[in-house]
Amino acid sequence: MPIGRLIDALVGAPGQPRMTDTASLVAALPEGAVLTDPGVLASYRHDWARDPDAGMPAAVVRATCTADVQAVLRWACEHKVAVVPRGAGSSLSGGSTAVEGGVTLSMERMRSLRIDPATRVAVTQPGALNAEVKAAAAAYGLWYPPDPSSFEICSIGGNAATNAGGLCCVKYGVTTDYVLGMEVVLADGTAVRLGGPRVKDVAGLSLTKLFVGSEGTLGVITELTLRLLPAPPPACTLVATFPSIETSADAVVAITARLRPAMLELMDNGSINAVEDFMKMGLDRTAGALLVARSDAPMGASAFEIEQMADCCKLAGASEVFSTTDPDEGEAFVAARRAAIPAMERAGVLLLEDVGVPVPSLPALVHGVRAIAEACDTRIVLVAHAGDGNTHPIIAYPPGDDAAEARARRAFGEVMDLAIRLGGTITGEHGVGRLKAPWLPAQLGPDVMALTRRIKDALDPDGILNPGVLLTES
Amino acid sequence: MPIGRLIDALVGAPGQPRMTDTASLVAALPEGAVLTDPGVLASYRHDWARDPDAGMPAAVVRATCTADVQAVLRWACEHKVAVVPRGAGSSLSGGSTAVEGGVTLSMERMRSLRIDPATRVAVTQPGALNAEVKAAAAAYGLWYPPDPSSFEICSIGGNAATNAGGLCCVKYGVTTDYVLGMEVVLADGTAVRLGGPRVKDVAGLSLTKLFVGSEGTLGVITELTLRLLPAPPPACTLVATFPSIETSADAVVAITARLRPAMLELMDNGSINAVEDFMKMGLDRTAGALLVARSDAPMGASAFEIEQMADCCKLAGASEVFSTTDPDEGEAFVAARRAAIPAMERAGVLLLEDVGVPVPSLPALVHGVRAIAEACDTRIVLVAHAGDGNTHPIIAYPPGDDAAEARARRAFGEVMDLAIRLGGTITGEHGVGRLKAPWLPAQLGPDVMALTRRIKDALDPDGILNPGVLLTES
Repeated sequence: MPIGRLIDALVGAPGQPRMTDTASLVAALPEGAVLTDPGVLASYRHDWARDPDAGMPAAVVRATCTADVQAVLRWACEHKVAVVPRGAGSSLSGGSTAVEGGVTLSMERMRSLRIDPATRVAVTQPGALNAEVKAAAAAYGLWYPPDPSSFEICSIGGNAATNAGGLCCVKYGVTTDYVLGMEVVLADGTAVRLGGPRVKDVAGLSLTKLFVGSEGTLGVITELTLRLLPAPPPACTLVATFPSIETSADAVVAITARLRPAMLELMDNGSINAVEDFMKMGLDRTAGALLVARSDAPMGASAFEIEQMADCCKLAGASEVFSTTDPDEGEAFVAARRAAIPAMERAGVLLLEDVGVPVPSLPALVHGVRAIAEACDTRIVLVAHAGDGNTHPIIAYPPGDDAAEARARRAFGEVMDLAIRLGGTITGEHGVGRLKAPWLPAQLGPDVMALTRRIKDALDPDGILNPGVLLTES
Repeated sequence: MPIGRLIDALVGAPGQPRMTDTASLVAALPEGAVLTDPGVLASYRHDWARDPDAGMPAAVVRATCTADVQAVLRWACEHKVAVVPRGAGSSLSGGSTAVEGGVTLSMERMRSLRIDPATRVAVTQPGALNAEVKAAAAAYGLWYPPDPSSFEICSIGGNAATNAGGLCCVKYGVTTDYVLGMEVVLADGTAVRLGGPRVKDVAGLSLTKLFVGSEGTLGVITELTLRLLPAPPPACTLVATFPSIETSADAVVAITARLRPAMLELMDNGSINAVEDFMKMGLDRTAGALLVARSDAPMGASAFEIEQMADCCKLAGASEVFSTTDPDEGEAFVAARRAAIPAMERAGVLLLEDVGVPVPSLPALVHGVRAIAEACDTRIVLVAHAGDGNTHPIIAYPPGDDAAEARARRAFGEVMDLAIRLGGTITGEHGVGRLKAPWLPAQLGPDVMALTRRIKDALDPDGILNPGVLLTES
């Protein structure tokens, strides 16, 4: 059934009273698990995407165990009610935005987490934060690499649902590279175990990998088995300024052809100036681009790798190159990169883009974004996980200015159009969610959308799982 | 339709004449693409699994382009004929064993291959050999890591279809970690492009990952976009002998908790003796286990890592530890490990197992395999990618001895039963194919099998794609 019609049938047109019968849901779950207080419901409408079209849920369920999740899905399957799985609500693309009259299924209470040091895995419930997984692993001298910028406040279940990335991905890969197994509850309430604590396992279809990045549209993850690495050695850090984006992109290509940096971040002129306005770090306001790179090669080899990277930067035309083996000094450079978002928050409300292109197309993307900013009369600065070609144009508009917001949202869409034209992706690590779903067909084409729909229909025939995410309609 | 019934309907019971009408297939393809000569057909019946139940194909198509593959699948879809995709035919689990009356679709002529050094990808047709991809990348100073032992003779398409592993996977991951995109022809002949030359891309479901490891049951891969890394520095190598499997497993756990070796291979007493019989290298025939480890950390750091690994081995109780920075000397140690299979080939026909367990369960697996060998009165020696817990018990039986073959096949199954009991997998890197399909339900359970079937039916409703692989019946 088309999702729009399904929801209309259940809850009437927007603005009409909700008709979802939550009494039977309350009866199906432990006392206190189902919340229907209007104030509480309102607090679960939005995630960080602040979608103005967010619905009001009929109920919020704070599950405490797999059985709770199964009960919700059995009930939702029977009553044909939409279920929106929600971790920490930090989605930037509306992946956990509430559906009108649906159930928002929060994982915030499912946070148990244990480390098995011999097998080098973490076994965690989805509500644990990324930072909690990292800390638990660190207590055993182990390391969970994926590091979205929001790692202190985002949930590990949301990371798996979106296949989240981060800064260290250029060397260490993304979330899917660390998910060895999971328990997932299907649309009909069946709980299945996929994979397990085995780095190599090709028995059967790659179902674990299919659920990673499925954004809650195929099932609800209730447990994850994550691969851990030994903690890396202390890193050396390099910062280089370039007269232009082109020269910095040349340096990125040269560096990644020679070695594997543990971080390779880029700031454009706009983000350099935004951070300098904010922090007064003495950054070169005239620079076309700034790169921050790291090596964590063991035992002195990091200084050697940094030297190689410095050579690449100089050959590409860097105007200044500075490197340090001092961790605090290195952290200061990375802090400049991380400060781009708080710096821009001072300029207004943010729309965070997440488009990616092949690395050689970075200059075309950066110039194109600048042209879009001018055409839309909106402010856009750009930071990027440059080694991956994954960029974050940060769009800011003054709060309460509807015309400015409309121009910003137009720019948001045009940036995606540009990325697609450049052979890129509309999302490198944030997910499609609701905000980007209208652009997905332009990237994937009708045949891949049809294939996606076939899998969705096979696993969620009633379309109750996170309707409107990934797929805008039946 | 159940595959068994589908095939029966088309070709009658085994032994009856084939009824597949190949004339219309010949007409649908370029001249010379379709082979029906009985001698040629017979040469495509088997792969390296030498399945005694292999069928006789009605035709072999040697495709030269995506359009040929589409024509075959359109024809097969219309006529409800089974299609067995085939790369180099080196499957050890019967993944490209012919189906009676079906079409074997060979990729051996689809071998074009190009490297894009700036984007650091290889774009290759499926018939190119793994070694050809490695060589093409190396010409640009780049590296395609996955290294199945058969890399000189196995096809890259087969690698992707099985999610092949290898020796360097302990540090560098398996095939799926390198497949950024693909073109795949679906059961109805539609060709779709998935992913692309982007390391980070979360736009839509992880379809690329779903097709990797699907063993030709969901579609036929016609092009791959593969991520390349910079070539690694020269490696240092360590070899250590241990009084027991237990002490060697302790060393593996200790090493992988501290650092990331570029190789961590194990030989048991049986394989040490088989190799010593074969090569007279002076290996310690009394050793319970031998480890071969490598570090490829840059600029002298590899010697430091090897020292750390040596410490781990000594602390775990190694009786002898030797290391070298000399590449030739290092290669000799690795050659001993690689010689286990040719050494055992002198003892008879081989059945190569591929079971995996969590690393701490390695001793239980090794002892269990020894007990199975005794109980089945068959010879089994064991080598392992120990850092991954992925083991290859090598079963040998005298050619032409039917009773010995039956005992060997019983042992083959019992080793899988054992791996499942130990929380492991029936296949770490070879694939399920036909040989292991009967054991898959015991590992995955009925709910995961049902989920697998739902996806299979959604993508291949007539069951024409590699029937009998992964799923034994409808």
